[in-house]
Amino acid sequence: MADIKSSNIVANSPAGMGMQASRQDEERKNNNIVETLLRLLPMALCLSALVLMLKNSQSNDFGSVSYSDLAAFRYLVHANGVCAAYSLLSAIVSAVPRPSTMPRAWTFFLLDQMFTYIVLGAGAISTEVIYLAYKGNAATTWSSACESFGIFCHKATAALILTFGVVVCYALLSLMSSYRLFSKYDAPVAYSNKGIEITPAFRA
Amino acid sequence: MADIKSSNIVANSPAGMGMQASRQDEERKNNNIVETLLRLLPMALCLSALVLMLKNSQSNDFGSVSYSDLAAFRYLVHANGVCAAYSLLSAIVSAVPRPSTMPRAWTFFLLDQMFTYIVLGAGAISTEVIYLAYKGNAATTWSSACESFGIFCHKATAALILTFGVVVCYALLSLMSSYRLFSKYDAPVAYSNKGIEITPAFRA
Repeated sequence: MADIKSSNIVANSPAGMGMQASRQDEERKNNNIVETLLRLLPMALCLSALVLMLKNSQSNDFGSVSYSDLAAFRYLVHANGVCAAYSLLSAIVSAVPRPSTMPRAWTFFLLDQMFTYIVLGAGAISTEVIYLAYKGNAATTWSSACESFGIFCHKATAALILTFGVVVCYALLSLMSSYRLFSKYDAPVAYSNKGIEITPAFRA
Repeated sequence: MADIKSSNIVANSPAGMGMQASRQDEERKNNNIVETLLRLLPMALCLSALVLMLKNSQSNDFGSVSYSDLAAFRYLVHANGVCAAYSLLSAIVSAVPRPSTMPRAWTFFLLDQMFTYIVLGAGAISTEVIYLAYKGNAATTWSSACESFGIFCHKATAALILTFGVVVCYALLSLMSSYRLFSKYDAPVAYSNKGIEITPAFRA
């Protein structure tokens, strides 16, 4: 508690304000770099999963199977495509050094949250299909398809693992964007000592 | 902007502080009631989905099928059970009027987020199984099981709809608990004018 008190005393002195402003700028710059990288990583993972799944097809004596034969895998491809596009776009936006405004923070928060749910959903339904393809199901008389199409199943599993990497990245991004958004809500009118960007209007 | 400025001037006068403290107490009480209700609702939905799924079995000339024959439905039942228990427990904790501390806010935030993902995952994989059971799949030679077991599929769909109700509740609860947690991070040392609970330590 003593730390918070003393840091506020320093922050309220004229010299402290200058020191704090430059420290804030530096922190903001570092945060921007971390966020941009954390948005480029899922883009790379999404694109890898996308390409792996798009090229995933197998033909043999039993017949042929392609990702497009299964609705779950089609959804996975679409989800990965849309997510890669959003990741790139949001990485560009977050790379530009600009004070964060409330509408921008809300947009990031809602979209990050939405994409976490979309990619998690896509990963979950594909997991179920791969599980059924490996194990089959006696009650519904669904046979194990992976016995006949081993390579197809392996590639689909690899794409799925990459997709869960995206889910982890987006869970972290959601945490980050909710911190950015909601920490504004109790912002003091004068200066913040936590390195959080406050809109110029709020700073007045 | 004028509103924020004037409300801060009022808040900083001795009379304003008293007025504000009582308004804060009232807001906090209302927030607690809303949160408790929002935690009891998914409990009711989880229990309904759980009971519906547990009793879901059908026998006819084609054979018999029960929820326990499908791994996805077993996971759905477990997820609903655990989620109902957590909803009840967290409703009790949030109903007790107590100043919110940082560890408590972090616990609520992390658990709410985790349960949103768990229930969303359970809902997604069960959706895929029901989709396959209705439509079948030609490439993997999986037949449509719902033609033979219509009642089973209907009940499973009903349980699924209830589960997605839980997902919506938990998405809102996640939003609420991230607001509670992260709005603390920039809390002013003296008084807050947003009705957010600050730990006594932070208030000193």
